[in-house]
Formats: sequence, structure tokens, C-alpha cells
Amino acid sequence: MKRIIKLDSTVSIVSHAAVGGREERRGPLGESFDFCDSSDLFGQKTFEVAEGEMGRIALNTALTKANLSHKDIELLVAGDLQNQCVGTSLGLNSFGIPFLGVYGACSTCTESLLILSSIMNSGEDMAYGAAVTSSHNASAERQFRTPLEYGGQRPPSAQWTSTAAGAFILGRNKNAPRISEFAAGKMIDGATLDGANMGAAMSFAAADTILSYFDESGLSPFDFDFIVTGDLGRVGSDILKDILSKEIPGFERLHADCGLLLYDNKIQDTHSGASGCGTSASVLASHFLPMMERGLIKNILFMSTGALMSPSSLLQGQNIAGIAPLIRIQMGENKK
Amino acid sequence: MKRIIKLDSTVSIVSHAAVGGREERRGPLGESFDFCDSSDLFGQKTFEVAEGEMGRIALNTALTKANLSHKDIELLVAGDLQNQCVGTSLGLNSFGIPFLGVYGACSTCTESLLILSSIMNSGEDMAYGAAVTSSHNASAERQFRTPLEYGGQRPPSAQWTSTAAGAFILGRNKNAPRISEFAAGKMIDGATLDGANMGAAMSFAAADTILSYFDESGLSPFDFDFIVTGDLGRVGSDILKDILSKEIPGFERLHADCGLLLYDNKIQDTHSGASGCGTSASVLASHFLPMMERGLIKNILFMSTGALMSPSSLLQGQNIAGIAPLIRIQMGENKK
Repeated sequence: MKRIIKLDSTVSIVSHAAVGGREERRGPLGESFDFCDSSDLFGQKTFEVAEGEMGRIALNTALTKANLSHKDIELLVAGDLQNQCVGTSLGLNSFGIPFLGVYGACSTCTESLLILSSIMNSGEDMAYGAAVTSSHNASAERQFRTPLEYGGQRPPSAQWTSTAAGAFILGRNKNAPRISEFAAGKMIDGATLDGANMGAAMSFAAADTILSYFDESGLSPFDFDFIVTGDLGRVGSDILKDILSKEIPGFERLHADCGLLLYDNKIQDTHSGASGCGTSASVLASHFLPMMERGLIKNILFMSTGALMSPSSLLQGQNIAGIAPLIRIQMGENKK
Repeated sequence: MKRIIKLDSTVSIVSHAAVGGREERRGPLGESFDFCDSSDLFGQKTFEVAEGEMGRIALNTALTKANLSHKDIELLVAGDLQNQCVGTSLGLNSFGIPFLGVYGACSTCTESLLILSSIMNSGEDMAYGAAVTSSHNASAERQFRTPLEYGGQRPPSAQWTSTAAGAFILGRNKNAPRISEFAAGKMIDGATLDGANMGAAMSFAAADTILSYFDESGLSPFDFDFIVTGDLGRVGSDILKDILSKEIPGFERLHADCGLLLYDNKIQDTHSGASGCGTSASVLASHFLPMMERGLIKNILFMSTGALMSPSSLLQGQNIAGIAPLIRIQMGENKK
């Protein structure tokens, strides 16, 4: 079964924005975010509506940076972690852009970029599309785990859901970072139903995608500047390196995990690192894409990693399935 | 802003299957379903897991009808109504097919066909893909409304969430019904927060998509055998006809709503009709596609209609947004 799909057109990320909350501003990438809200409420009355507002600000910022209006955008692909993805529908419906909602848990950023770039590759007509992904610590924690007021203890393997959104405008600029190929992820049983150890559950899916990518492409890790995973955190990243160190020599030297880049665990006590689909979205927008635009790096594999589960499925004793879609982002022509 | 995207390739629906529960078997299309379970539990212990099993049976049946194995399928696009789409991830992960999860409320069937056909149109390499959509009355009612044991009264505008799944295998058979173009839907404020009147909330979105389609294409309703909506039900269909009767002469004569086809309201007391994303999926698979294959009809516009909301968003006083993506399905070449 072929996994890699090549995109021959010049679909590229012409603008992007990262928006976050208080903890994200305190982290190592805080100054690279376009906007952070010190209250995490973004002027709204509830955390759920705040998440939508965060996505709205992210998309507006990305549009402004590209000197575009929402009327220039022909398709919006977006999602979040809230039940029925209402963060997205509440926050982004005022733009009036034709919309496709996606749900890939924390893999939504890569999934939305993959779908949008493929649709834009399919027809040369579409000039601009947008992809937006968000997560909010407070809306996610009280939905997936316990009411915030409990102040429940978190085990060391637990991750901190980021309050963050990333927005991306895709266009056809040959000088911008280009999405040149992708591979969808398989749902891999994570062999756990511990919602406080999602890194472990997702690491097998990430390993599956990476192994199949290198097997099929014939490339080596050293053909890339970074091989990025979304939010495996410390526990998941260690498992991934254990799995791949023998199979793919050199992998561990090129690996970077967005969940380990967003916070400084020594100061912020975020345990195993960041999670939430806003993590990979905001780190791509604030860290990796700017590095590409400055010419520091030219070629990365970018995966977001998702844990497919719900509070009901865990209570009913169903294992978490991981999923890890992948895109290749590069400057200029595809040499290999 | 251009809405219609044309698909030039021969991506077509080469196989399909409809699976349902007890009420679906009793309805007018019951004998056209491939499989119905008399208990609605499909051999499982919970309704949530049963929904996944229903999707698994639907995809297996569609594969078998096409003489294909799951190993022939290179991409799966699927979704359902459960929180975090776990119906889909529980039911379909055993196939091991690369997966993209989508969430469009009850518009998921059209959304998944739109995304899959566009990705297959983008690269000629992919021989087969699959799209699966499911909803389950019991898992949806207790998630969105009240515990089943309440036996809550339902107002006349309420619809009956179908226990149904539709699976579609897309390939490149020139003699099969072809997806020739699509238009994504806009999120349109339904001006209501009544979760028991979703037809009204969705009707504006359906009207928006239909108006923009005919405006942009220059076609008339009489160029089609049917203009199908997903699950507007009686209330929503009446509103849609009110809106469009002057704008698009002849529309009401060509309109059909899957929510009014699935049950016989005189016998089944389903109030305003069927809803749930399994409705349009199973009616397309059991009714419209077989009519095309028998040569009775050749050319339809097919829309699923979704209500973007969650129990939390309603409690927080947020209006329901409707959405109605559209695909054109036709036999043979595109004349206009």
C-alpha cells in the first residue's frame, strides 16, 4: 500500500500566525507568538468561546500579515478538541468562508494542511485557502478530565494542554515554504487507556508513519533538517527514539517534538510537556516556518500526533488509538 | 468568491453499502439496506461501540461488493457524531487504512466524499479510497440531549437520529456514478439555539449553498433529476422551499430530503423526520446510487446538512450554525 502522495503544484504556506495564552507567553517561544492573552479568556465569558476567539485572532493575524482579506480565502479547513469542534465553528463562522471541519485530536494541524494543500493541488483555480487549529487548556481539561476547580493531581507522564492556535494561509508563492508531499496516518492501538499518558499511546503511530515514510521514499533522516513530531512530550519522545534508534540510524539526532519546545519544564512545571492540537500548530507557525523563511533550514518532515479517544470510550474500557499524519515542508524544488 | 470546484478525473463511486438498525429496517428503504440489526446493538455491549461496529460492517460490505480487500484501500475519510468521533476510530481502526477524520455534524457524508474525491483527483496514483459515515440513535440522544431512560417528550419539530451507516468505495470506473464537482458549505448562523429544531437551523445553510451553486454554474434545477438535502426534515424542508421558491423556479419539484425518505412518519412517529449523519449516507447508498446504477436517474446534486453545536455551546447561549456542502453526482460525461 502506497502511503506517500506527492503534490506537484506550488502550494505553499504564504502566511501564518501563532496565538497563545499566559503560559505560552512565558515559554521559550513566547516572544515569537503574534499575540498572547494574559488572562486566557480573550475578552470572552467562557473558555470555550475564548478558544474560538483565539482562532479568529490567529486567522485575522495571518490574513493581515499577507495583506489579504477573508474574502480572498476560498476554503477554510479547521478543527479543535472541543466536543463537536464548536471552538472552530463559534470562532470562525463570522468570516463566511466555505468550511471543512476536521477532527484528528492533536493531529489536526497536519491533517488540515494535508487536506487543504491536496484540494488546492487538485484544481489550479483556488488562489488562497486557510487552515486553523486551536486548543485551550481550560476547555480541554474540563471536557476530557476533571472540573478545573478540583485541582486534580497530575502524574509525571501527564502533559499540559496548550492554550494556543495556529493559522496558515496557503497560496502559490514559489519563494514560500512549500508542502511537497504527505502521508496520512494509520490509527494504531496505543495499548493503553491511560488518558494521562497520551505520549506513550501516540508514539507507536508516529513510529509507524516515520518507518513507512523512510521505507517508501528511500530517503534517510539526514536528508532533512528536522523530523518534527507534534506533542509526544518527554515520555512519548523517549519511546519513539527507543523504537526507531535501531531501525533508522540518526533519527534521534534530527528529532524535535513541539510538545518539548513550547514550555520550559524547569520553570513551568508542565510535566511531560505540552499537548493539545494548538501545540504543533503554534510551534510550526512561530518556530519552524520562521526558521525556513530566514534560510536557516530548508526541508523538514512535520507530523502532528493525535490520541483518538473520548471520556466515554475510556470509561467503556476502550484503548486509545494514536494517529500521526505527516507533511513534508521544503523551500524550493524537490531534489529527491 | 468561487465556490464550485470541478473534478476532471474519473473518480467515481464504485461500491457502496448501507447498514441500519431496527427502525431503519421498518422504513420505506429498509429492504434496500445491505444489513440491519434488530437490536441496534450489533452484538456489542454499548451503543457507542455498536456504532463503530455498524461502520465496520458497512465498510466490509462495500469492500465485498466490489471484490476488494481493505489492503486495496489507500485512504479512509470518515466521521460520526460522537464526541471526538470515537465511533469511527473504535470501529474502523482494525482495517489499518491511512485515515483522515472529519467532523461536519450531519454533513459528514458529503464532506468526506468531497475531500476523498478531491485528494484522489489530485494524484492519479491512488486507485481506491473509502468514505464512511455513521450515526446511532442511542449514542447521539444520550450525548446531545437527555439520558435515554428519561423518555423525554419530543416536540413536533424534533427529528429522529438514525441508527445508520453508509460506506462508499471510490475508484476510477467510467461506468460508475462520478463525483464531477463540489462546493464546500459556509457556516451560516441558524438564528436559533433550539436543539430540537435543527431542520430550521440548517435550512439557511442549504439555501445559501443552492443559491450560490445555481448562480455560479448558470444551470437550472431542471438540469438535474433530483436536488437532494440531507436531513432538513419536514420543518427544514418547508423553510427551504419558502426561501427558494421565488429565487429558483422549479426547485420544489426537484427537491428530495433524505430525512423524509428514511422513515414512514405515519407508522413510525418520527416527528419531523430523520436526522444524524448516517441519514444522508445510508439514503445515498441504498436509494439514490442504486437508481443511478439502474439508469433511472443520471444527474443529481447531493447535499448533506449539518448543525454545528454542542450541548455546551447551547447551554452557553450560542446559536446553532448550519452547514451544507454539496457534490454533483452524475453518470457519464459532464455535458454542461
